[in-house]
Amino acid sequence: MAATMKDIARLTGLGLATISSYFNGGNVREKNRVKIEKAIEELHYEVNEVARGLKTNATKTIGVVIPELNNIFCAEIITGMEDILRSHGYATIVCDCRTDKKLEQEAVEFLIRRRVDGIINMPVDETGAHLKKFQKTGKPIVLIDRKIQGIPCDSVLVDNKKAAEDAMQLFIEKGHRKIGIIGGPEGIFTAEERLEGYYTALKKAGIPIKNSLVYHGDYTIQGGVRGLEELVRENPDMTAVFVTNYEMTMGAIIGVNELGIQIPEQLSMIGFDNLQFARACRPKLTIVSQPTDRIAKEIARIILEHLEKKEERSEEPFMEKLQTKIMEGKSVSILNR
Amino acid sequence: MAATMKDIARLTGLGLATISSYFNGGNVREKNRVKIEKAIEELHYEVNEVARGLKTNATKTIGVVIPELNNIFCAEIITGMEDILRSHGYATIVCDCRTDKKLEQEAVEFLIRRRVDGIINMPVDETGAHLKKFQKTGKPIVLIDRKIQGIPCDSVLVDNKKAAEDAMQLFIEKGHRKIGIIGGPEGIFTAEERLEGYYTALKKAGIPIKNSLVYHGDYTIQGGVRGLEELVRENPDMTAVFVTNYEMTMGAIIGVNELGIQIPEQLSMIGFDNLQFARACRPKLTIVSQPTDRIAKEIARIILEHLEKKEERSEEPFMEKLQTKIMEGKSVSILNR
Repeated sequence: MAATMKDIARLTGLGLATISSYFNGGNVREKNRVKIEKAIEELHYEVNEVARGLKTNATKTIGVVIPELNNIFCAEIITGMEDILRSHGYATIVCDCRTDKKLEQEAVEFLIRRRVDGIINMPVDETGAHLKKFQKTGKPIVLIDRKIQGIPCDSVLVDNKKAAEDAMQLFIEKGHRKIGIIGGPEGIFTAEERLEGYYTALKKAGIPIKNSLVYHGDYTIQGGVRGLEELVRENPDMTAVFVTNYEMTMGAIIGVNELGIQIPEQLSMIGFDNLQFARACRPKLTIVSQPTDRIAKEIARIILEHLEKKEERSEEPFMEKLQTKIMEGKSVSILNR
Repeated sequence: MAATMKDIARLTGLGLATISSYFNGGNVREKNRVKIEKAIEELHYEVNEVARGLKTNATKTIGVVIPELNNIFCAEIITGMEDILRSHGYATIVCDCRTDKKLEQEAVEFLIRRRVDGIINMPVDETGAHLKKFQKTGKPIVLIDRKIQGIPCDSVLVDNKKAAEDAMQLFIEKGHRKIGIIGGPEGIFTAEERLEGYYTALKKAGIPIKNSLVYHGDYTIQGGVRGLEELVRENPDMTAVFVTNYEMTMGAIIGVNELGIQIPEQLSMIGFDNLQFARACRPKLTIVSQPTDRIAKEIARIILEHLEKKEERSEEPFMEKLQTKIMEGKSVSILNR
């Protein structure tokens, strides 16, 4: 039969309160700690986290709801977070909602039934309707890369507007004026911020905006292929294109290859994310690079702070904004003006 | 206060046994089912899966232990599996062990404490030592892409030997004889199978084996870069190279770009996995393509069969072997013999 806390108490001669305090992370004198750990080993005692969860009303489980696990930005962030959360004893249940609001809602319901201690979400439904019920539990929610009006919760995001402005700035400095953009889906926060950066940079440079140069993609590889094809077809005089996420960047490169366009002689390009992919492009692609590693660490830190109440946090939701940087390749030509 | 099963019994006038049977998936008359579901809605009753798990001794949770979530092959399989498992009410806890045996062991211990109902594992430790303790629980283990001697459990893998033979066959048919290989880590099942396919194809064609043409990589992008550089340096007469996983394929393409080698004029190449990346290469890369979607479906199907005991399975472990196929690009030249 499995050993119980009582067996540990008997073997160590300590009170149950001390043993319980040990398992719940409370203060235990060093010599008692040593005794308890020796007893655990001798008795082959195993914590039943499930039973413990019922008593402490904490399951030590965090739900993560993301649009696409296949998306490299999501995968890298989850890898980083999961590592940290696990080292603090938290399991991570990952739900991929396939960029579908209904599936996202179902995933949250599922996590509520699972009594998760907190939810990390890169929301698809920007109204936040899917989070309302979980929010009532008072448990923490942390948003990745997006903000939601009306759901007061912490978020970690990158300065997407500036990211796009920087990329456009680089094109403009090198003499480009007919610059296309393969943007993300309308209604998605990051997509709108990046598009706004595009408009702002053009405005600052006094370049008129042309609708045919703006393609609204869907953050998928196929969307990138279609976007590149359409921009090229509609704008024979376009000299540069900015692609606003990794999957569409891969798609745009596929489009360029399949149309036989020479980069940067016939078209300059700046992509998004994934330095390794940029190196695998010929010529090497200039990209906007997001600090995925830091995003992962910050999200884990914030949710752990909430869960372990290490420090008093104000009620005011906390928004952390990280900066991107441009990694220059050889995909942007200098134009003679 | 939250509604209980007793409240449902009171409202419907049915016995607790019937209500309980409903929640545990037993047989309940249609008219009673309708009554219960109406009561659930009225009472806003919520299943507490955690409490339920303690009673039924099933947590409806499956642990997945993989070497790298960043690895596209792993990410695609998990995406596919998680979808199916969730639709059957199972949560998936994903642990990324960073290709580290010690972390892998810790991940399994963690899942044991979590009382998962089953484990899906792409093992790093090929002795299977990390699975021994879980195996004693009698709960199912399904292995992805690898076999372990001494742990009798089901596995789904691809015919890796034939995959490599097919790629080599293509090179040989087009007149190549000095063919390098960027293989995977020694001791890893898939890597050894792929290497064996390489040797078998050469032997069948009567081509002598040359040690300097065999590079033992580590399945990472950087490993692919180093492998390509070393093979090119050591073998000035090499005309073709076969790269045996996706990450190293991306690395080899980076190496080729950074050395300024022309594909296929100066070097022919066949890579592994990821059709989209192959399309993004210039020229389009010929690759060996694995049926990741089918692998994901098969693994989910097998573990659900075990968990839901839909059909009697023999005690004999079941090994499913899926076939790969070659997707031809333009990265293999025809040599004049």
